[in-house]
Amino acid sequence: MYLAAVLATILIFLWIQVFADEGMWPISEIHKIGLQQKGLEIAAEDIFSPGKLSLIQAVVQVGATGSFVSEDGLIITNHHVAYGSVQAVSTKEKDYIQQGFKASRRSDEIPARGLTARITESYRDVSTEILSVIKEQMEFAEQTKAVERKMKEMVAEAERENPGKRAEVAEMFSGKTYVLFLYTYLKDIRLVYVPPRSIGNFGGEIDNWMWPRHTGDFSFLRAYVAPDGTPAEYSKENIPYHPKKYLQINPKGVEEGNFIFLLGYPGRTYRHRTSHFLAYEEEVRMPWVADWYAWQISVMEMTGEKDREIALKHLSRMRGLSNTMKNYRGKLSGMKRIGLVDIKREEEKELRRFIQADQERKAKYGDILKKIGKIYDDIRERAEYELLLDYLRRSVNMISFGYTVYEASIERQKEDLERESSYMDRNFARTRQRLELSLRNYHQPTDKMVFKELLMRAAKLPPEFRIPALETIFEGADLEGNIDEFVAQTYSRSTLSQSSVLMDALQKSTSELKEMNDPFIQLAEALYPSYQNLKKTRDARTGALTELYAHLIDVKKEFLQKDFIPDANRTLRLTFGRIRGYHPRDAVYYEPITTLDGVVEKTTSEEPFDTPAELIALHREKDFGQFLHPQLKSVPVCILYDADTTGGNSGSPVLNARGELVGVNFDRAYEATINDYRWNKDYSRSIAVDIRYVLWIMQKYGKVDDLLKEMDVSF
Amino acid sequence: MYLAAVLATILIFLWIQVFADEGMWPISEIHKIGLQQKGLEIAAEDIFSPGKLSLIQAVVQVGATGSFVSEDGLIITNHHVAYGSVQAVSTKEKDYIQQGFKASRRSDEIPARGLTARITESYRDVSTEILSVIKEQMEFAEQTKAVERKMKEMVAEAERENPGKRAEVAEMFSGKTYVLFLYTYLKDIRLVYVPPRSIGNFGGEIDNWMWPRHTGDFSFLRAYVAPDGTPAEYSKENIPYHPKKYLQINPKGVEEGNFIFLLGYPGRTYRHRTSHFLAYEEEVRMPWVADWYAWQISVMEMTGEKDREIALKHLSRMRGLSNTMKNYRGKLSGMKRIGLVDIKREEEKELRRFIQADQERKAKYGDILKKIGKIYDDIRERAEYELLLDYLRRSVNMISFGYTVYEASIERQKEDLERESSYMDRNFARTRQRLELSLRNYHQPTDKMVFKELLMRAAKLPPEFRIPALETIFEGADLEGNIDEFVAQTYSRSTLSQSSVLMDALQKSTSELKEMNDPFIQLAEALYPSYQNLKKTRDARTGALTELYAHLIDVKKEFLQKDFIPDANRTLRLTFGRIRGYHPRDAVYYEPITTLDGVVEKTTSEEPFDTPAELIALHREKDFGQFLHPQLKSVPVCILYDADTTGGNSGSPVLNARGELVGVNFDRAYEATINDYRWNKDYSRSIAVDIRYVLWIMQKYGKVDDLLKEMDVSF
Repeated sequence: MYLAAVLATILIFLWIQVFADEGMWPISEIHKIGLQQKGLEIAAEDIFSPGKLSLIQAVVQVGATGSFVSEDGLIITNHHVAYGSVQAVSTKEKDYIQQGFKASRRSDEIPARGLTARITESYRDVSTEILSVIKEQMEFAEQTKAVERKMKEMVAEAERENPGKRAEVAEMFSGKTYVLFLYTYLKDIRLVYVPPRSIGNFGGEIDNWMWPRHTGDFSFLRAYVAPDGTPAEYSKENIPYHPKKYLQINPKGVEEGNFIFLLGYPGRTYRHRTSHFLAYEEEVRMPWVADWYAWQISVMEMTGEKDREIALKHLSRMRGLSNTMKNYRGKLSGMKRIGLVDIKREEEKELRRFIQADQERKAKYGDILKKIGKIYDDIRERAEYELLLDYLRRSVNMISFGYTVYEASIERQKEDLERESSYMDRNFARTRQRLELSLRNYHQPTDKMVFKELLMRAAKLPPEFRIPALETIFEGADLEGNIDEFVAQTYSRSTLSQSSVLMDALQKSTSELKEMNDPFIQLAEALYPSYQNLKKTRDARTGALTELYAHLIDVKKEFLQKDFIPDANRTLRLTFGRIRGYHPRDAVYYEPITTLDGVVEKTTSEEPFDTPAELIALHREKDFGQFLHPQLKSVPVCILYDADTTGGNSGSPVLNARGELVGVNFDRAYEATINDYRWNKDYSRSIAVDIRYVLWIMQKYGKVDDLLKEMDVSF
Repeated sequence: MYLAAVLATILIFLWIQVFADEGMWPISEIHKIGLQQKGLEIAAEDIFSPGKLSLIQAVVQVGATGSFVSEDGLIITNHHVAYGSVQAVSTKEKDYIQQGFKASRRSDEIPARGLTARITESYRDVSTEILSVIKEQMEFAEQTKAVERKMKEMVAEAERENPGKRAEVAEMFSGKTYVLFLYTYLKDIRLVYVPPRSIGNFGGEIDNWMWPRHTGDFSFLRAYVAPDGTPAEYSKENIPYHPKKYLQINPKGVEEGNFIFLLGYPGRTYRHRTSHFLAYEEEVRMPWVADWYAWQISVMEMTGEKDREIALKHLSRMRGLSNTMKNYRGKLSGMKRIGLVDIKREEEKELRRFIQADQERKAKYGDILKKIGKIYDDIRERAEYELLLDYLRRSVNMISFGYTVYEASIERQKEDLERESSYMDRNFARTRQRLELSLRNYHQPTDKMVFKELLMRAAKLPPEFRIPALETIFEGADLEGNIDEFVAQTYSRSTLSQSSVLMDALQKSTSELKEMNDPFIQLAEALYPSYQNLKKTRDARTGALTELYAHLIDVKKEFLQKDFIPDANRTLRLTFGRIRGYHPRDAVYYEPITTLDGVVEKTTSEEPFDTPAELIALHREKDFGQFLHPQLKSVPVCILYDADTTGGNSGSPVLNARGELVGVNFDRAYEATINDYRWNKDYSRSIAVDIRYVLWIMQKYGKVDDLLKEMDVSF
């Protein structure tokens, strides 16, 4: 008993310790941090103050994050953020991935296909309005639907009142707090300067999620608007956008121990979830997905091996799969290393003891954890079935095409606010664009193999989880033969991979689609009920969990006597920390600044360590200009810090104590992949390309003096 | 010119700097070091003083190195030094590699097959005698033979004068200095305590040549002698040997920055060779051998995959091949990293300038470097041919068997001193033992594949380098078919893989062997002239290089105004340094002491990271006893230091400033594989198992209290 009490004290202490260091703070909360005591030399109001000019107006969401660095709408972000767009305009002859892209004049700047930019303009707490729609007698699935509908209504209303702006309602704490954000929304984004892959993605998948890092993971874009200054789709007549605010660059960079902060749009964290969720992630979902991605990658490597054109088609998708796979594997080993599930269970045991200690609390919260546990038991039981359904639609292009056009024909008939989000008027053009991009990278032999593999797996589902639409395929003795024949037939009979057919189909009604007699549309129709049921099941779960997690937060607050920071949810956040190394494992210490010497040290003649010869020559001649670091005796390349980031923070500006740009965030260390579940002061480290490397590359290698001048960087 | 002069100064400075830190000092020279200023707290005479009792009498050569740690002849050395002997007495049922070996009583100690022990007794400079046999008019090959003959005569004479002792003449500086060493030679060595592979070879080939390390690479042997105290072969009646001196153990270990020194038998270094040698090693020999070993390893992995018994046969050999392969790859990357060949060339350019500056010097030394270069040109040209001949005999067991018996039949007819060393009376028993060991691990399918591969390569040799004995095999259109048939035929017809046949054959005369009609003996006979020519070519080269290198050392001494330390040559040396970390690459620092936490951190459930459950439990329970390190909060496992070591130093005692045992050397860091060619103060680091880990394992895991008591270790 005594031991348990000591343990409890230690755990609470650790918990608070941990929370004390972490934080992806909503901008509305940053005045609570006491940033100046932490090391900030400007006022918190200079970062954000409602209605006033502040740094956040220089921060822009471009898929992940970017920031304005000139009055003419120049945006700095990551190489990997622009990657898909660069790939989309690359051909075998003009391979901008390999060679890089450089616009000598503004008129040479070309559309960054698929990219848009959003700037946070304002926000408003709408929790009361949103939660008012939940009625006692509603089923959980109905509650979820009602909340979704209310969100859409509020978004529509806000966009009506603010023409040209984009609105989003973000859930901060499940079932508790909701905030409506208003964004300026720019649609004409162009490529300006992108270094070659051998700089921008130096180290490739081998170095991804790794420190020490030597990647020049940056690129420059420019936002354009209509001649009258309003947001517009691409047009030759458009003019550069003038942001309200842009960042000052400090070419002197930072040193070990210096205070830094980041602004950005972190995607998703799960720190308030229970041990049941974590155990499911660790034992079921992540291993399944990591293995499935590894399988797909090996197929794409095989089909792309002998043909650079096919390899180019796979490039962006493989990179995405590989990124997630390595992230999951990092998380799995990190969870094991710190015994995360056990830690959570211990914490929950303490919480349970706290709840049991008081009759009123017991009555109110006594069964929360048990109920949450039951929901995850159900998720576990259905996991293989649900994952297969999910990945049929996600991993097989042709099913995605067939299903999208079929679902569109149903959804587009509904009132706008009733539709699935991607079929609403405000999103439909982007949905169409996404299909076009997928089609561009479509490769039939690969798609067939992926489809076949999933069918083979589906054939092995237990009787209670069969997918009715597929059952006829699995009949008969020669399972593999039947699947092979079915796959061959559907692909040879379908015309959906022709761009014109697919785009036409997206406009058709359900009955017109049926007349096409396309096997993938027929398959979509047959699968439709399964997906509808899946959605219903999940809505019910979400409704139940939303209520349970809301209660959980309440009692945790009571127990720990503190406020929490909401999980990341793609809204603007601030995080801070210091330039700092770490011990990744026994007897190894990683220092927080890498150098050009390290780039040369890693260089082989082979991808992904194939540094351009010009760079090697600059290093040999010690042509470091003003970027020579006096102690390191080389040009700094990447920096490491203990700020709290996750995916979506890619491209986030790293700012010094005076709010000047000193780096561009692009990754986390392998041991920090676990950030999404738990912050850890020993291991949570994030990585930026050092502004000194960016500028040195631009000056000495890229020779883009006009851009440097535009950013007020003087040499 | 100015730049060149500065460069020259820097290079000389570096050279001296470098030599100032390095050093595998012959024991005769250690009084010159000033060891007490370096940190030694005892007198140099306590380490070695001719004719007196000193530490070197506790050091023993057992293949590599070991040391006495009790008055009853207990020897501590590496797990990997005893490995082959442990493997030789292991079976599927009693797998001492997997389970470890522990003798509960002295009577349970079993022979360590193949191991002998030598203790350095005395030495004497015999340069004048040796060099006196070289006559002006001799061809180079004759010179080599004359020197070899003289060495053998002196050895025979010394062994005659010192019955039971073993003598060796060691070349210290080619063509300059020779020393005769006299050794006590013990032949009954037994296994006492060997930890399981999961401790003694934790990390296996993955961690080999790597830091941070977590391997308990130690084992205990015992030397036995006849009841009258004289060296004897194994016999039940033998009694433990009482060494003149044994080491005291310090269970407190060492700390970062502490002075340490090592005694041992380092094998071979090449620091006095020229750039021509290094370039040949880097460009030709090492890549060839590393690739060839990699190929053999992959074959052995394949053939051993499904059968543990076959895998066991391959184990020791694969380990040897893999060890060399990784060492070579480490060297190749290290040579590239520091640009070693270019550094040597620059140094030689300076030396050449020094030679040219003086008429007399020019006349005497003007063409040394050119002549050395010419010899390496020749070696390069013949490399593929010579390497193939070498590896036919080394890699193919059946050729080795056939050739050994055939050569024995010729050599054994000669007067003893005229024979190749391994057929001399004093060595012939060991040669026989080695054959028996090879036969024990012989696996026909593997041997056939290796033979076929070498024949395929031999078939591609250019016309001027064909091997006559193989030509008939390569005739006809279907090359691979012919080779397959030849291989199948020879193996099915030969009986040399039967132990009794092979051992009988070793006693037969040449004509008796011919009567056997064994295809591998016939092949040996056919190959014999090629090998004889090869030996002649090499003797001539050695003679020429011996003379040239002797001159080179003379002029280098004049140029640099300093004495040199001779290259390692398996004679007793001292090296010293401090416990010290290093920077292996940009932004990474390795600390010099690892811990048990790191063992657990690396542990997976799979070989080679499969820590025994008992050890994991001891860690969980923090049962660290007196070995808890107060700062590291765990048991120290391995230590790192900047002393100068090479292969042969395996098992060397690591001694603290007071000459007490604090570790057992077993490896170098990857970046230090380059030691054999060049010492580097930033990268040259060697690795020992910490005595604290050894004692903790013995106490808590092995529970061998008697041994601890025997070593006077009190807890």
